[in-house]
Amino acid sequence: MMAHDLLLLAGDGIGPEVMGEVKKVIGWFNANGMDFAVEEDLVGGCAYDAHGQAVSDATMDKALRADAVLLGAVGGPKWDKVPYEVRPEAGLLRLRKDLELFANLRPAKCFDALADFSSLKRELIEGLDILIVRELTGGVYFGEPKEIRDLGNGQKRAIDTQVYDTYEIERIAAVAFDMARLRDNRVCSMEKRNVMRSGVLWNEVVTQVHQDRYGDVQLSHMLADAGGMQLVRAPKQFDVIVTDNLFGDMLSDVAAMLTGSLGMLPSASLGAPDAATGRRKALYEPVHGSAPDIAGQGKANPIACILSFAMALRYSFDAGEAADRLEKAVESVLAQGVRTGDLLGPNGGAAVSTAQMGDAIVAAL
Amino acid sequence: MMAHDLLLLAGDGIGPEVMGEVKKVIGWFNANGMDFAVEEDLVGGCAYDAHGQAVSDATMDKALRADAVLLGAVGGPKWDKVPYEVRPEAGLLRLRKDLELFANLRPAKCFDALADFSSLKRELIEGLDILIVRELTGGVYFGEPKEIRDLGNGQKRAIDTQVYDTYEIERIAAVAFDMARLRDNRVCSMEKRNVMRSGVLWNEVVTQVHQDRYGDVQLSHMLADAGGMQLVRAPKQFDVIVTDNLFGDMLSDVAAMLTGSLGMLPSASLGAPDAATGRRKALYEPVHGSAPDIAGQGKANPIACILSFAMALRYSFDAGEAADRLEKAVESVLAQGVRTGDLLGPNGGAAVSTAQMGDAIVAAL
Ligand SMILES: CC(C)[C@H](C(=O)O)[C@@H](O)C(=O)O
Ligand SMILES: CC(C)[C@H](C(=O)O)[C@@H](O)C(=O)O
Repeated sequence: MMAHDLLLLAGDGIGPEVMGEVKKVIGWFNANGMDFAVEEDLVGGCAYDAHGQAVSDATMDKALRADAVLLGAVGGPKWDKVPYEVRPEAGLLRLRKDLELFANLRPAKCFDALADFSSLKRELIEGLDILIVRELTGGVYFGEPKEIRDLGNGQKRAIDTQVYDTYEIERIAAVAFDMARLRDNRVCSMEKRNVMRSGVLWNEVVTQVHQDRYGDVQLSHMLADAGGMQLVRAPKQFDVIVTDNLFGDMLSDVAAMLTGSLGMLPSASLGAPDAATGRRKALYEPVHGSAPDIAGQGKANPIACILSFAMALRYSFDAGEAADRLEKAVESVLAQGVRTGDLLGPNGGAAVSTAQMGDAIVAAL
Repeated sequence: MMAHDLLLLAGDGIGPEVMGEVKKVIGWFNANGMDFAVEEDLVGGCAYDAHGQAVSDATMDKALRADAVLLGAVGGPKWDKVPYEVRPEAGLLRLRKDLELFANLRPAKCFDALADFSSLKRELIEGLDILIVRELTGGVYFGEPKEIRDLGNGQKRAIDTQVYDTYEIERIAAVAFDMARLRDNRVCSMEKRNVMRSGVLWNEVVTQVHQDRYGDVQLSHMLADAGGMQLVRAPKQFDVIVTDNLFGDMLSDVAAMLTGSLGMLPSASLGAPDAATGRRKALYEPVHGSAPDIAGQGKANPIACILSFAMALRYSFDAGEAADRLEKAVESVLAQGVRTGDLLGPNGGAAVSTAQMGDAIVAAL
């Protein structure tokens, strides 16, 4: 059996801590019949500190060759003043863009044991299971021109450009419909067609892809602002939501917060299947950020990063059973009442450390 | 005393119904010492039906001359297929742009009598009182190019352009700081400076305006996606939020939904004070849309539109006492248990009609 090449980019803040626990999990799978060859490298602020770039060309080469990349988190106040081109987030954005990871899958799932942590009433989010499919390599994140011009007279002009081509919308729509078929078979597409030309094209293309190839899936459309409202009002009405890069950023964060347990949520960013091998380039990362306020204190919840590895097992390594096993281990640990600090309610209780949570999950495996 | 010129643009869907109740309220004030000269005209889909434009030049002339404009709502599925340039929303956008109404004030207030309608837990939203100050004449709503190009080969390219100049950010920041001084003296500015150059400039200019002129106000910054999360997690942490046109659209809708009573929320869109007279051009409108599903049935809640008129009393007619009186009348009617259908919980109860709600408010005046 060929080894699975996995590149770990722990990044900044709590990234290294949570990634440390994933390494234990990988160790367990390696001791139990799987074969992951792990490399580690830098991304984000730590990469800038090391060599002045948020991700180096050498790291990019490794990422391009790896079967999958697992990322911790990037950014922090330490790098607030570094030049725009080399800020920590630029490393993440370059990975997404250069690996052509156009499909970002963000499940927002409410864990029963944690339903009370949501700011929403329990009945509204109990059993919640949404998948946000966010376009990740287009839109205002990458469109040109993207610059600040000096107009003189103390005036500057900042410009960002939202650009979408038909094919970009087609391929992300197809991912959303494919995913829906594995779930409740419903897709809601969100844009602002009443204000944005890209929203008009988005709506048109999604409708066309549906008509041509996915007539069996139920499709609806919602304006993105109304979508944000509906997520807060009655989130369980949704199955799969498909939307663009910027709306996806906003809406997936709102959806994530609904579950009440941001420290639990993984994500996957996938490229197109390779014509010859069928393999997709992929990057997996927790939805949470680098949480500089608690970094280095052993307080962070490693579950989102561990569940991101579970998504890697499923989508990159065709190891659905191993993924199920890992997800079940996490659930059983939660059911036992093991909690990092972020999972304790206002009534408190005893928090375990990042490492203790990782150990408990490995033990449950 | 000179009459106050008020232009009513009822618009589409439930617009005419809710505006009908505002007319009763205006009638009451006219019978009690004030002097409003009311004109009425068309905007949105009904204007398109009448003369092929979402707002005609003649209507624009009236709007430019009026002391204030009160708008009901625009849009509906009936006009889904009309050309982009004359869609109902284009009327609203032209009004905002041509009147230079750059400052959109969207209070998100939770009414005690309605706190249980929120999808959030009561303790999180009880007493909620946020003001979102949204930039309204710039950003991706109006930037050029804004078009769909045919690339051939069945491919199209849609482009929208986010543009902000220093002065646009300066003036909206100043409005936010001025408003904060009348409230809890705190402003949180939201952008995506980690991805957008306009976010970088936004952050820079807001910080500068604060330093130069508003050192007494507390200023914080938040990434817009994190801001969406925080609104859902703990909305009461905010006092005034200042943000751009598109983020403001999303965030103010999320904030509105938190209150649980969209049918209650007014908004004001203000221009710069006239150098000679100090008067600001202004347009007032409910936050809710045209609700085509219940239009014409006498079910709509007129309170948001009535409270928009209260904002007009306060900001355009220097009639703060009259505004207070109207707001108190609304509160007392709610305290009496008078409810339109949207204000009934899952346990039901008897709903009053749009007209009955208007009558009750006039009676309470
Ligand atoms: C870190 C940042 C560049 C990123 C984004 O805006 O995409 C993050 O918010 C996310 O959602 O993954
Ligand atoms: C109707 C539409 C053009 C408008 C907007 O996007 O600004 C609405 O959503 C609003 O928030 O006032």
